[in-house]
Amino acid sequence: MINSIYVDNIIKTALLEDINYLDTTTDYLIDEDQENTARFLAKADGVLCGIDVALRVFTILQEQGFEAKVYKHDGDVLEKGDIIAEIRGKTRTLLKGERTALNLLQHMSGVATATGQAVKAIEGTNASIADTRKTLPGLRPLQKYAVTVGGGKNHRYNLSDAAMLKDNHVDAGGGIASAVAKLRQKLGHMTKIELEVRSLDELGQALEAGVDVIMLDNMSCEEMREAVAITNGRALLEASGGITAETLRAIAETGVDIISMGALTHSVTAFDISLKISC
Amino acid sequence: MINSIYVDNIIKTALLEDINYLDTTTDYLIDEDQENTARFLAKADGVLCGIDVALRVFTILQEQGFEAKVYKHDGDVLEKGDIIAEIRGKTRTLLKGERTALNLLQHMSGVATATGQAVKAIEGTNASIADTRKTLPGLRPLQKYAVTVGGGKNHRYNLSDAAMLKDNHVDAGGGIASAVAKLRQKLGHMTKIELEVRSLDELGQALEAGVDVIMLDNMSCEEMREAVAITNGRALLEASGGITAETLRAIAETGVDIISMGALTHSVTAFDISLKISC
Amino acid sequence: MINSIYVDNIIKTALLEDINYLDTTTDYLIDEDQENTARFLAKADGVLCGIDVALRVFTILQEQGFEAKVYKHDGDVLEKGDIIAEIRGKTRTLLKGERTALNLLQHMSGVATATGQAVKAIEGTNASIADTRKTLPGLRPLQKYAVTVGGGKNHRYNLSDAAMLKDNHVDAGGGIASAVAKLRQKLGHMTKIELEVRSLDELGQALEAGVDVIMLDNMSCEEMREAVAITNGRALLEASGGITAETLRAIAETGVDIISMGALTHSVTAFDISLKISC
Amino acid sequence: MINSIYVDNIIKTALLEDINYLDTTTDYLIDEDQENTARFLAKADGVLCGIDVALRVFTILQEQGFEAKVYKHDGDVLEKGDIIAEIRGKTRTLLKGERTALNLLQHMSGVATATGQAVKAIEGTNASIADTRKTLPGLRPLQKYAVTVGGGKNHRYNLSDAAMLKDNHVDAGGGIASAVAKLRQKLGHMTKIELEVRSLDELGQALEAGVDVIMLDNMSCEEMREAVAITNGRALLEASGGITAETLRAIAETGVDIISMGALTHSVTAFDISLKISC
Amino acid sequence: MINSIYVDNIIKTALLEDINYLDTTTDYLIDEDQENTARFLAKADGVLCGIDVALRVFTILQEQGFEAKVYKHDGDVLEKGDIIAEIRGKTRTLLKGERTALNLLQHMSGVATATGQAVKAIEGTNASIADTRKTLPGLRPLQKYAVTVGGGKNHRYNLSDAAMLKDNHVDAGGGIASAVAKLRQKLGHMTKIELEVRSLDELGQALEAGVDVIMLDNMSCEEMREAVAITNGRALLEASGGITAETLRAIAETGVDIISMGALTHSVTAFDISLKISC
Amino acid sequence: MINSIYVDNIIKTALLEDINYLDTTTDYLIDEDQENTARFLAKADGVLCGIDVALRVFTILQEQGFEAKVYKHDGDVLEKGDIIAEIRGKTRTLLKGERTALNLLQHMSGVATATGQAVKAIEGTNASIADTRKTLPGLRPLQKYAVTVGGGKNHRYNLSDAAMLKDNHVDAGGGIASAVAKLRQKLGHMTKIELEVRSLDELGQALEAGVDVIMLDNMSCEEMREAVAITNGRALLEASGGITAETLRAIAETGVDIISMGALTHSVTAFDISLKISC
Repeated sequence: MINSIYVDNIIKTALLEDINYLDTTTDYLIDEDQENTARFLAKADGVLCGIDVALRVFTILQEQGFEAKVYKHDGDVLEKGDIIAEIRGKTRTLLKGERTALNLLQHMSGVATATGQAVKAIEGTNASIADTRKTLPGLRPLQKYAVTVGGGKNHRYNLSDAAMLKDNHVDAGGGIASAVAKLRQKLGHMTKIELEVRSLDELGQALEAGVDVIMLDNMSCEEMREAVAITNGRALLEASGGITAETLRAIAETGVDIISMGALTHSVTAFDISLKISC
Repeated sequence: MINSIYVDNIIKTALLEDINYLDTTTDYLIDEDQENTARFLAKADGVLCGIDVALRVFTILQEQGFEAKVYKHDGDVLEKGDIIAEIRGKTRTLLKGERTALNLLQHMSGVATATGQAVKAIEGTNASIADTRKTLPGLRPLQKYAVTVGGGKNHRYNLSDAAMLKDNHVDAGGGIASAVAKLRQKLGHMTKIELEVRSLDELGQALEAGVDVIMLDNMSCEEMREAVAITNGRALLEASGGITAETLRAIAETGVDIISMGALTHSVTAFDISLKISC
Repeated sequence: MINSIYVDNIIKTALLEDINYLDTTTDYLIDEDQENTARFLAKADGVLCGIDVALRVFTILQEQGFEAKVYKHDGDVLEKGDIIAEIRGKTRTLLKGERTALNLLQHMSGVATATGQAVKAIEGTNASIADTRKTLPGLRPLQKYAVTVGGGKNHRYNLSDAAMLKDNHVDAGGGIASAVAKLRQKLGHMTKIELEVRSLDELGQALEAGVDVIMLDNMSCEEMREAVAITNGRALLEASGGITAETLRAIAETGVDIISMGALTHSVTAFDISLKISC
Repeated sequence: MINSIYVDNIIKTALLEDINYLDTTTDYLIDEDQENTARFLAKADGVLCGIDVALRVFTILQEQGFEAKVYKHDGDVLEKGDIIAEIRGKTRTLLKGERTALNLLQHMSGVATATGQAVKAIEGTNASIADTRKTLPGLRPLQKYAVTVGGGKNHRYNLSDAAMLKDNHVDAGGGIASAVAKLRQKLGHMTKIELEVRSLDELGQALEAGVDVIMLDNMSCEEMREAVAITNGRALLEASGGITAETLRAIAETGVDIISMGALTHSVTAFDISLKISC
Repeated sequence: MINSIYVDNIIKTALLEDINYLDTTTDYLIDEDQENTARFLAKADGVLCGIDVALRVFTILQEQGFEAKVYKHDGDVLEKGDIIAEIRGKTRTLLKGERTALNLLQHMSGVATATGQAVKAIEGTNASIADTRKTLPGLRPLQKYAVTVGGGKNHRYNLSDAAMLKDNHVDAGGGIASAVAKLRQKLGHMTKIELEVRSLDELGQALEAGVDVIMLDNMSCEEMREAVAITNGRALLEASGGITAETLRAIAETGVDIISMGALTHSVTAFDISLKISC
Repeated sequence: MINSIYVDNIIKTALLEDINYLDTTTDYLIDEDQENTARFLAKADGVLCGIDVALRVFTILQEQGFEAKVYKHDGDVLEKGDIIAEIRGKTRTLLKGERTALNLLQHMSGVATATGQAVKAIEGTNASIADTRKTLPGLRPLQKYAVTVGGGKNHRYNLSDAAMLKDNHVDAGGGIASAVAKLRQKLGHMTKIELEVRSLDELGQALEAGVDVIMLDNMSCEEMREAVAITNGRALLEASGGITAETLRAIAETGVDIISMGALTHSVTAFDISLKISC
């Protein structure tokens, strides 16, 4: 699904970084014609993400004669020991692409797995899990996609495609009502407006101003519950700030619509997958 | 220290990703001439890394008239509440660069902090902490640098600049002795050879073959101790595989020379730093 | 306002295209140290757009010692004969950058001027003028920006940042209600949904489905008036398809909220501006 | 014919611009395996240009299994209703590539159609229609090619590949004779020299200096006729400046060799072509 | 003179290639604040070329505070021992940029020096020395420029900007007369036509066809003399193929107009220049 | 063997440089469907290098239907008249790619041939031939690879992957012993240290400091012999500086381990290969 132009660019960047001009060990020892089979194996339980991206690494390195059987797809739940895919190609290609493919696959599956856990933690509530712009430079498309694969939703992608007023914007705009009105005059009709509030008083002003989404910044569960009651469906409410696995469910149960978590993309634990090349 | 061509490239990639064509909220509400001051604040204890890179974001966005006072430098130990740097420039620039600067700074400081903890854990032993090629695509220079800032050392940077024989290479080369000999005939005189072994028998062959470094793959501490005794300084020994904060010290005490940890770069927890823009 | 990374990229592309490796006539005849003054002059009436971009061409070519006095800014109404800006620098720089600067400035001012005319044509009605994705490859940021400078608004920037269902999407999704419901389950909370309808029956379904915006595709003014009455504020209505200067006002008077015009960006008439280099 | 490296670059730029990281509507609603057929249809009369470029968009998006039947080729005269090409591939690919393909095809056909009209207007005279360097940044190769497809000829491509002396060059070179002589000493033997003149006196000097081409800048038809008589084949004469559809024929009939028109590339009206995807 | 966009691109490519992510020796041993002076010294006799490009390397690495005094300029004749320029900046910058600056400077001066020798060898004759398209990939702008600095002239820059018919073109075009006529119908008026001939018979046809330049391919001096007599100024004559320092003068004395030499750019001997950094 | 991402990048750069937007002569005269056969022929004796790179040029230009029979491979000794490869494809492709393919092939074979000659000159001694960082900007991967094909070895690839102390580093580090010790504390375990010495006294200090490799800078053969005796295998010795074909064997016979020659890559004579396209 991710734009293939982007995927190829990031793979090429990674291969230039990891191989530089040749793989001395492989190029000097492995015969050019030798072929081999390799298997991607799950070494933990989680959610798979990035298998197409990982396989693309080998296609890029070896245009012809590379084969893949894919047993698990993005979004599939993995159990330790699962065979994800089996590939066949030149041994040199397998060895040269291994690290880049795994670095991508483990990172993307790490994001999807963490998202999946967060989504599960709030199951049954009305809330959704969303990501943020706290992504790793150059990897935003992969990370945003992985969040959706894990069952989460994407917050705005960048500063162009949705508006979010923070205190500096509100001050410059002359208060909430005035700032929102000014902004609406310039924004296109396809662009939503979110406003960050830090008190129920500000919430009231935001509702009055008619913004689409209101971010409740670092509020207590009690305050959020009250905010939900006050809002009563007039805007979407987003909980944000310092949310952990421990507090997630309680926050969801306050009735907020969205819980956004920077950690999904800024603090990723790689999901353990290996590539076993048969000898 | 990092090649500035690379630093500028990754910053520009990040800014295109995060801003796209304009920052609607900021461009439509903040006056072009408004100036402001902002402070980078540590929100936890750790090791700072990336402050020059973070400041460079604002210099790239605003060629002239941007000022910075830097109170903490890369490698400095941070305590929660420390002011790292104070910058002054156009409010628009501060708001547009904020997220990109923080994403870079938090990630790099996260790597340095985790490395610093690992280095501290093995203090007093003979071992060093090293990174691996398990880095995030496009971010290898930043991550490798952050490892050194945290007190760790860099393993080989890529497949060109040092040789590492794994089982596939050894098999293709006709056994350890033969593979190493073949490789040495082609490798330049500035390139070291490492060989991965999984038993003390293989260790013996590796020593015989005269490799520079031997990787002890997933060995028990007892095996490693024995390996150290057998090797007796004839090669450097690197412990690798499944190393955690808990096992780190015990491994270091076996006498190995290097402990390499993929988690330093593939599973980074962002270090919490905020940018407070005064209103 | 436009992301400076993008602006510099498009200027560099243009300069490589226009100069290739040197400007033979200028480099062989004009002394390197000769300096000169030049003036951007309006040769028609319209709306200025792109003066910062045009000046940036010369800054990029001559890092130091280039000076500019800017008399007119983006959005200013120009009359034939107006001096827009006066620049001083090396004659070589002025001659090498002239064509690229004018190509950018004339195109952007052309977009802004045409938009300004459309906006004026519907003055007093409730409608806004919006652009489309019918932009020229590589120039979207400049064109979208120029539309706002002319008083228009930006429709969605790309396929990622807002959803628009056309007949193929509706069919694949099992009808309007079902397709919108499916989409909403996956879309983030900052993303609006627009649906293209070709009859009042479809309009009814769209309203029922609760989409944010409804595109009335090639409807007659009478149908649009009826659509406005039926909708009664429950969604934004966008008129689209085959709109010309002649029909614009009548359409606006039907009460639709947005009129989107591909011609603003796909069929641009350059606005005539010259650069007069004094001898 | 256009260098495929360039074509692929501009397509990739356009796809990154138009899709960003995914096409939410399409990726969330259309099944990955669904295939479909689509037809490019002419919606007006004109000259086709860019069909290979448009088809390449889909090939880039879908490496394998994409099929195309091409009924009309670049340079063919189109009548409203003509089927230009029929393509078959994944529905997702058709929808994702549609806008980019049409933006390219409509622009290139717009240039070719306008050129064709100008060429037709001067049929039977001795003159040729030529383009200028007044092209849109990043699109010069496509535009210059489209001019040739429409029956026009390319003026110099850039500042490196032919010399053109304007008043600043002549002044710096010490008058026409001296400037041309200086230039010729440095220019390669494959490079032509053109000189812009504004009077018959300057024309005489230019002929004396032996330049290859003389540009008659904004002269009246009468002056041009006289210039043709004076020149008598000793140099090519190019009419330039403020030429419109109305004045074109009269200018051609003065006997000039070339009429160059900036409007062919700086003020392009998109030629209307649609892509009809069958449901 | 060379387009600065290109110069910066090639320097950045070179610095990424030569430094990768850091200069371990320098970054680990030299204090960041240490400054130093360095001198470019000629170590042989020749023609200087590329000093601005070489200095630009250091400007790119150290934006502020880098100083240069330039004693010799492009085109100046160097004697062994000459100080070309003196620079002052951070020692780190001097050491990191040294190799890249010298690689560029020595190559460009090598091209200029060899060209200068060829030009000198034919002094007093009517002929000029020209380069070819036999350049090193990525370095054409630098090499073409260096040829002009050495006193030579540039042949066509690329396949777009001038036409050259070889046997395959002539055959496909139905013989010399027909091929030239066909080509002229499509070529712009600023584009010259050259034709490669291998006999005096073909020369006659070429003259009849009215081409601008005729390449005499691997002809003997006697044949060339005869060709000059036959041509009698009706076209420019270019000698090409297997020309060496030994045969150069004799060829020039046949009366041909241009002698093109691939060796000027495909077989360059670096000109020895050192950078002496004072301790 | 060379990273295909790099190879494709350099080929695309070269094709953009050489073709620009189209090949007028070929595109206007050769029918699009015409096919032809062409042969790469050796026109001298030497070592082949770059045939895969040269063929890749045509594959990039013509994705489908291009065929090649390869008779000689990289490293094969060529005799004048040998057919290296035979290719079949569209005549347009053959003509458009010819120059770029030959420029690459002749340069790479030139490097390999010169290296082969140097290797042969020292046959029977203990020494190896190595390259340096004196490469041509943008071409390092091709040149470094060509050295290995000619039988030479690669010195360090860049400033990141091995350490080399020159006098400035030694001074800054407080003398040889201290500088090496400081460096070793920071360098990774896969990175070798070389030190440049200019006297036997410095050699002694270098050996004491335990560096891996010692560069004997511009020493006489006598000094080198003495150095070999003193060193007695405790470090590798590299001869460097002013080495010519004449002095090569004598230097090798001193017993040094490596002889590094900048001329292999900075002063390359193209190896003559032609592409004969049958008519």
